[in-house]
Amino acid sequence: MKTKISVYIATSLDGFIARADGGMDWLEHDAGDDDYGFAEFMASVDTVVMGRLTYEFVVSTGLWPYEGKRMVVMSSTLGADDAAPHLAGKVEFLAMEPLELAAKLAGEGAKHVYIDGGLTIQRFLRERLIDELILSRMPVLLGSGVPLFGELDRDVLLRHVETQGFASGLVQSRYAAVR
Amino acid sequence: MKTKISVYIATSLDGFIARADGGMDWLEHDAGDDDYGFAEFMASVDTVVMGRLTYEFVVSTGLWPYEGKRMVVMSSTLGADDAAPHLAGKVEFLAMEPLELAAKLAGEGAKHVYIDGGLTIQRFLRERLIDELILSRMPVLLGSGVPLFGELDRDVLLRHVETQGFASGLVQSRYAAVR
Repeated sequence: MKTKISVYIATSLDGFIARADGGMDWLEHDAGDDDYGFAEFMASVDTVVMGRLTYEFVVSTGLWPYEGKRMVVMSSTLGADDAAPHLAGKVEFLAMEPLELAAKLAGEGAKHVYIDGGLTIQRFLRERLIDELILSRMPVLLGSGVPLFGELDRDVLLRHVETQGFASGLVQSRYAAVR
Repeated sequence: MKTKISVYIATSLDGFIARADGGMDWLEHDAGDDDYGFAEFMASVDTVVMGRLTYEFVVSTGLWPYEGKRMVVMSSTLGADDAAPHLAGKVEFLAMEPLELAAKLAGEGAKHVYIDGGLTIQRFLRERLIDELILSRMPVLLGSGVPLFGELDRDVLLRHVETQGFASGLVQSRYAAVR
């Protein structure tokens, strides 16, 4: 079976994943008890890939919601000795390009890879490596911040699969790659 | 009755209303026969407001889908004599700020105002003048272009009213202002 590569992320209505200072208060604001399908999504994932910045953010939270997953941090500067103490042995640091990493993970049996972090998502999108994009929009305009999407060398066409609205006002759309 | 001020616009999934060169081919691509509720929306509108750039774009198309509406172009440089020949007498050019214009239109009996054009929408959003935002997303990433949203001095909170998916893959969400 081919490895499936997914993005699951929330943005403001104007496309930001965080405020310029990294703040995500606008996202927690209306979350309530609903996890918007995240637990179900994570249950289907065996491998998580993120960039160094997202890794450092996750470390800063003190939380580790990736127990039992293969966890890869794409970094050209960090090595095994740089893992946060509570994550020693749980994280791999790999200095690879997206295509090379995707091939490695597929060759090693990954079935479902979750790509997280704005820059890492942008790199995988540019290489047409994303099979599934689960995009949630919060009903707020921030005006500035860290954008989810970035420059592309050509259009990325997607197929809309389904959209679901939640009581909080979050709207979640699922898209599949068009090959 | 209070004047209602609405935005009805489509963007790419990464938030652009046109390519950097103004191209909107990506929008026409999948439109099919469905007008995504535009005719119904327009039937409820009595006044259309746009900026000079959008006006010039509309003129360039040779089409005039605003027959029977009061039509205002916000411009500090154009006057009545600058109307395109086929639009003489059909267009008002007003050099006003959004707040002033909104008060004028309300005072003159406008019931439902349609704000069009990226910069004009941004100006009205910054002034908290938008009551309704009908936002359609095409399932394509462009990577660059003319963004719908711009900088804000503070968050704009919205209330999600409803979302509808169309066969083309377009997803249309309706938001109301939170006062």
